[in-house]
Amino acid sequence: MNNFTFQNPVKVLFGKGQIAQIREQLPANSKILLTYGGGSIFKNGVYQQVKEATNGFNILEFGGIEANPKFETLMKAVAICKDEQIDYLLAVGGGSVLDGTKFIAAAVCFEGADPWDILAKQAEVKAALPIGAVLTLPATGSEMNGNSVVSRIETQEKLAFGSPMVMPQFSVLDPEVIFSLPDRQVANGVVDAFVHVMEQYLTYPVNAPLQDRMAEGILHTLIEEGPKVLANRNDYDAAANFMWSATMALNGLIAVGVPQDWATHLIGHELTAYHGIDHARTLAIVLPGMMDLKRENKEAKLLQYGERIWGINQGTTNERIDAAIAKTVEFFESVGIKTKLPDYDVPSETIGKIAERFEQRGYKVGEHGDIGPKEVSEILESRL
Amino acid sequence: MNNFTFQNPVKVLFGKGQIAQIREQLPANSKILLTYGGGSIFKNGVYQQVKEATNGFNILEFGGIEANPKFETLMKAVAICKDEQIDYLLAVGGGSVLDGTKFIAAAVCFEGADPWDILAKQAEVKAALPIGAVLTLPATGSEMNGNSVVSRIETQEKLAFGSPMVMPQFSVLDPEVIFSLPDRQVANGVVDAFVHVMEQYLTYPVNAPLQDRMAEGILHTLIEEGPKVLANRNDYDAAANFMWSATMALNGLIAVGVPQDWATHLIGHELTAYHGIDHARTLAIVLPGMMDLKRENKEAKLLQYGERIWGINQGTTNERIDAAIAKTVEFFESVGIKTKLPDYDVPSETIGKIAERFEQRGYKVGEHGDIGPKEVSEILESRL
Repeated sequence: MNNFTFQNPVKVLFGKGQIAQIREQLPANSKILLTYGGGSIFKNGVYQQVKEATNGFNILEFGGIEANPKFETLMKAVAICKDEQIDYLLAVGGGSVLDGTKFIAAAVCFEGADPWDILAKQAEVKAALPIGAVLTLPATGSEMNGNSVVSRIETQEKLAFGSPMVMPQFSVLDPEVIFSLPDRQVANGVVDAFVHVMEQYLTYPVNAPLQDRMAEGILHTLIEEGPKVLANRNDYDAAANFMWSATMALNGLIAVGVPQDWATHLIGHELTAYHGIDHARTLAIVLPGMMDLKRENKEAKLLQYGERIWGINQGTTNERIDAAIAKTVEFFESVGIKTKLPDYDVPSETIGKIAERFEQRGYKVGEHGDIGPKEVSEILESRL
Repeated sequence: MNNFTFQNPVKVLFGKGQIAQIREQLPANSKILLTYGGGSIFKNGVYQQVKEATNGFNILEFGGIEANPKFETLMKAVAICKDEQIDYLLAVGGGSVLDGTKFIAAAVCFEGADPWDILAKQAEVKAALPIGAVLTLPATGSEMNGNSVVSRIETQEKLAFGSPMVMPQFSVLDPEVIFSLPDRQVANGVVDAFVHVMEQYLTYPVNAPLQDRMAEGILHTLIEEGPKVLANRNDYDAAANFMWSATMALNGLIAVGVPQDWATHLIGHELTAYHGIDHARTLAIVLPGMMDLKRENKEAKLLQYGERIWGINQGTTNERIDAAIAKTVEFFESVGIKTKLPDYDVPSETIGKIAERFEQRGYKVGEHGDIGPKEVSEILESRL
């Protein structure tokens, strides 16, 4: 096991009716900006619950944070925060609203000339407004970590930053929010959480059996509960198990002491940046190609994954790895997520553009730092 | 799944050489009391490492905190803290030193007349001195929770309290401390952590498959790695896996949204109070009796435990439960922990005394609140 430091102070309020608890979490006399997305919170009753729980607080609202939150949109909220002397952010939404709110929190306090540097130059986040969150869509794990991904229309870029300063102080996870989600968002959430686990699990063994078993436990639970949620949106327990799995997939715990990959994410971000494809779907496209290309580096873990998750314990090494990849693709497709580039009308020219970006940025990613422009091309070509 | 609130802000510094990190964790200009136990830290090099890491800090020392830390001893440290205006506690030791230091932290700030009320009357802990910890013995999980158990010689009592106020701000977990531990302490640690998991897992199903799998992951890892540590004390990875499993066993995560038992602990505490038996050994005595007596209430989980942990999937329900209990006893005995009362020369009269205490205190414990004096007697009589 590798050395590690782990700290995650996010307070999780999980279960039915927990939105009412917000009242006790928010500091009295704070001036709050309630951030949200496209307005689904008005239809599913969450907005009403939040308003009741915050009755009497001084709250402004900022809606319209889009999927793959845009720098341009978020900077409008930053201006409001400064003009109105906002001192607390309450994010009500899915991963995009939470990620966007984290950027707002950091950008308001950023002392450099251009807050885009937080993303483009990984400028240090020395301070941030405090954040509370009400999650309406399980997927990204953003409710219990300090990660954020932001896009910029102008330059067709999608970049990430992370800082403990932007971890939510509290996050409300009420599984009932899932009852009104469309299939597409449930499926995206299942696949997003699944691939988050894979990025931290499918690398090389460092003799960390507990982390492996926890990762496998999340994968099993997603495979078991995801289809139940899709089949019956009112199955509370299935919704709760899916929601908690998505949070546990990216709160840092399964990553302690082990190598991490994240190359699938970095390639996937480019597919979203160029073509606006849903984040989870880009991961479903890229991951099988990654597993295939890196079958030697990842051999031990691919075999373990195949055996423990899918019961694959016969055949040659390559046959078993092929079967593990096929099972992964089959699972993604079974929840309605296509896994090939043509399914999303991505032209083959995009591959060159993405490889070129890796070249320009000098990216060498993955757990061995050996995924560069050439490998990106190979992976994406295998997904045509 | 049940509703839950989870928050655990403890910063874990895990791995070789991490004691050196203490310097960055301690507040400058603080006046620190370094607390420790019987002096093993002078033999295993930990004291020296701590002194080097804290060079320049203003530190007093308080040694001699015993296994099953005594109220009488701890109150001496409380007096020193007040006299010397100590504002930070640095606990260097195993669970007893950490638990004792938590009590010191709470007692120094306690505003009531008698700090014993924190234990005997569960008086609220409204404030506590901040604590940092260097763990020298994996077992209790005290390094990543707000629990503490303290004994009182005068009245032969052993009582617990818990408060987020006494969670360590940071805990250093360097698996190398295990290299110099005697077999007895390693075995105690393995069994203690194992039973901590069982108290949170072996109840009744509430459809929380991820929590189950995480609990089972810890059990598997302890079963696998514990004997490796016993066989080769210099196996760093086995030590690390054992250490992390013991922490994960009681940092609150596997308890979220599920019922908890803890009756085995409450009965075990009495065996320590009356006879000074090592904590883990009392658990190894009581747990098999608990599993046997509560086989109906716990049936579904006993069968799941038998199948997933020990591969028991044949026979009638009772045969499978008998086999699961037998496997548990066999595991405890295999690491050198005896499981019957006569193994520890406990006379049968003790059973009546413990039942009487449950009577006096009005205890009805366990996940159904149905373990009272009568059940305590039945469980302990089955262990004669």
